[in-house]
Amino acid sequence: MSVVMLEKCRENIQKQLDNVVDFWLKYSHDRVHGGFFTCIGRDGNIYDELKYVWLQGRQVWMYCRLYRTMDRFHKPEILEAAVAGGAFLRKFARVSNSSGQWKCAFCLTRDGKALKVQRTIFSECFYIMAMDELSKVTGDKDMQLEAEQMMEQLIYWVQVDPSGLGRPQLPGEVPINSLSVPMMLMCLVQQITEGRGQEVSQKYKELGIWCVQQILQHIQRAGTAILENVSVDGSELPGCQGRLQNPGHALEAGWFLMLYGAQWGDKEIQRTAIRNFVELPYQYGWDKEHGGLFYFLDVDGHCPTQLEWSMKLWWPHCEALIAFLMAYNHTRKPELLEIFSEVYQYTFSHVSCGTRQRVIFFWLRVSMRKSLFYSPLR
Amino acid sequence: MSVVMLEKCRENIQKQLDNVVDFWLKYSHDRVHGGFFTCIGRDGNIYDELKYVWLQGRQVWMYCRLYRTMDRFHKPEILEAAVAGGAFLRKFARVSNSSGQWKCAFCLTRDGKALKVQRTIFSECFYIMAMDELSKVTGDKDMQLEAEQMMEQLIYWVQVDPSGLGRPQLPGEVPINSLSVPMMLMCLVQQITEGRGQEVSQKYKELGIWCVQQILQHIQRAGTAILENVSVDGSELPGCQGRLQNPGHALEAGWFLMLYGAQWGDKEIQRTAIRNFVELPYQYGWDKEHGGLFYFLDVDGHCPTQLEWSMKLWWPHCEALIAFLMAYNHTRKPELLEIFSEVYQYTFSHVSCGTRQRVIFFWLRVSMRKSLFYSPLR
Repeated sequence: MSVVMLEKCRENIQKQLDNVVDFWLKYSHDRVHGGFFTCIGRDGNIYDELKYVWLQGRQVWMYCRLYRTMDRFHKPEILEAAVAGGAFLRKFARVSNSSGQWKCAFCLTRDGKALKVQRTIFSECFYIMAMDELSKVTGDKDMQLEAEQMMEQLIYWVQVDPSGLGRPQLPGEVPINSLSVPMMLMCLVQQITEGRGQEVSQKYKELGIWCVQQILQHIQRAGTAILENVSVDGSELPGCQGRLQNPGHALEAGWFLMLYGAQWGDKEIQRTAIRNFVELPYQYGWDKEHGGLFYFLDVDGHCPTQLEWSMKLWWPHCEALIAFLMAYNHTRKPELLEIFSEVYQYTFSHVSCGTRQRVIFFWLRVSMRKSLFYSPLR
Repeated sequence: MSVVMLEKCRENIQKQLDNVVDFWLKYSHDRVHGGFFTCIGRDGNIYDELKYVWLQGRQVWMYCRLYRTMDRFHKPEILEAAVAGGAFLRKFARVSNSSGQWKCAFCLTRDGKALKVQRTIFSECFYIMAMDELSKVTGDKDMQLEAEQMMEQLIYWVQVDPSGLGRPQLPGEVPINSLSVPMMLMCLVQQITEGRGQEVSQKYKELGIWCVQQILQHIQRAGTAILENVSVDGSELPGCQGRLQNPGHALEAGWFLMLYGAQWGDKEIQRTAIRNFVELPYQYGWDKEHGGLFYFLDVDGHCPTQLEWSMKLWWPHCEALIAFLMAYNHTRKPELLEIFSEVYQYTFSHVSCGTRQRVIFFWLRVSMRKSLFYSPLR
């Protein structure tokens, strides 16, 4: 792939981004109850009114990022929509658990009534992301505080006592290190500390180190595999759960680690990130016959129990685009750019229509890292 | 399809059944901890040791049915395996909930420690099925009583107060009638009353009527659709949840209703079963382009939110085989036999290898209804 081709990719992604932001500004805002619709047909028709908290949070975050970092989106309507979305989240997303701790609902009715609460930390993660980014745009100290308080809560659940999540403790349950947890926490550390100065950065430094350690534990089998679930002491778990691979997650963790390495000047982590979390997941996760990244794989080649294991979802491909472009920018190894090109072509010709409406969040995520495209190319 | 062809189907299914029973007798028994392995490779290799309670229950039920109703399986080793499986279930599957009611775990470790408890009734349903069928074979009155006690518990959760299932009551949650619930209860009524005489039959008569009413509420849109979820007063629910169709479930409900109609001499229910729960789900659920039954569909043609919606799973095809053969036996309409033939050919040429090990339960289910094949054919 040449510099000219890369410039063409950039232009196309920029066009897609404009397109997609227009679409969401036009159709997704619920002007009656606040918040955003997320099940929208190609014609703008709302085919479901439920409001998933993680998507509400992602949309608030996106609007703020667009407004804050890209001139052409620095428009009052985008800021207003983000602020309104944030108000909806603050009013409705938090529910109190039986211990009086704040949980976030997973799903709300159109008018904000909690419909489902998951016994995980992920809705809370997106809530924090939204609040923090919104506070960066508006300067609202309360929101920043709220994001940090929710963050403390998460850290407590993850590192000290998970019982507040609502899962009954069962005798057969063994605590596990699931890649998604340190990955999301690391993403939040990067979010919360970004541009906040030395004090906040120091406050979360230790947590960042812990996240890196936890993520690196997923390198298994003498460096030949990233496994999705490992024991808390970093060894392989028995059975399907232990052999599970999720190439999209590994790639996502890869670019989080690269950012971390860049932030702290840690070249060893950057090398590990590229070798084990970018190149390796592509090697085992890419479908050599039909192209595309598998959703799940079993490291020993058994059939994963997840029915959807062989599907080519949009999000792992977006993570791969970011990861390979970032890795190329760091190393200038032409083969990384070649893989970027392969993933790019596959993604743009195969991403399923049915998911188009959600895809935007990740087109945005790609586009937002525009600095990647502007690095000097050899 | 001719009588000769149908006889060939019967022979093939009988052969598959022998094959599959041999396989499970040989590889699935855990001789150290009791219970059955259910993740078994083609070579007999155990690739996961977790014990899902519903599969344990199904296997106990199957062994008992084979032993009780088919001469060639009336062998001590099958009875012994069923009894051992039942003992494992009684010892480990039940867990007490916070209200002191008995729940069943969804999943156990190899040595029987509870690993996960679902907030639904389905593990309990399979527990009841196992206990009742086992008591029919062994004459164990305690087990029969236990099955009936667990059944009372289920009825209470479904009809009076679901809070014992462990789901927090949330303000946005609306009680719904999900097809799987009355369907499973109806199946249990048929199980528990079979061969138990007038008294038991009368005891569950009212529940049977209630189940039929609840199932018939899923006929929606002027009889043109079976919807998976409806409101408790039998109207269509908004959004994706309300428009969801699961053709395999509808077909399964269809043959349960046919059995019910035959038992109570209700011809109207039999007609409704065939028209609305057998012919109709095939019409909307069969993939006209590639063949096979879709897993999920949206009645308005939107993309279902379930990633696996377009997959062709083995179990809906087994339900369809039973339903169409039963419907044909009842009506003698040749077009029903033609559809049976189409489903049969598709199933035997396309059922995925990866699922082979679980498929057996449903081959058995087909084979067990051998009376279907023996009805005089015109």
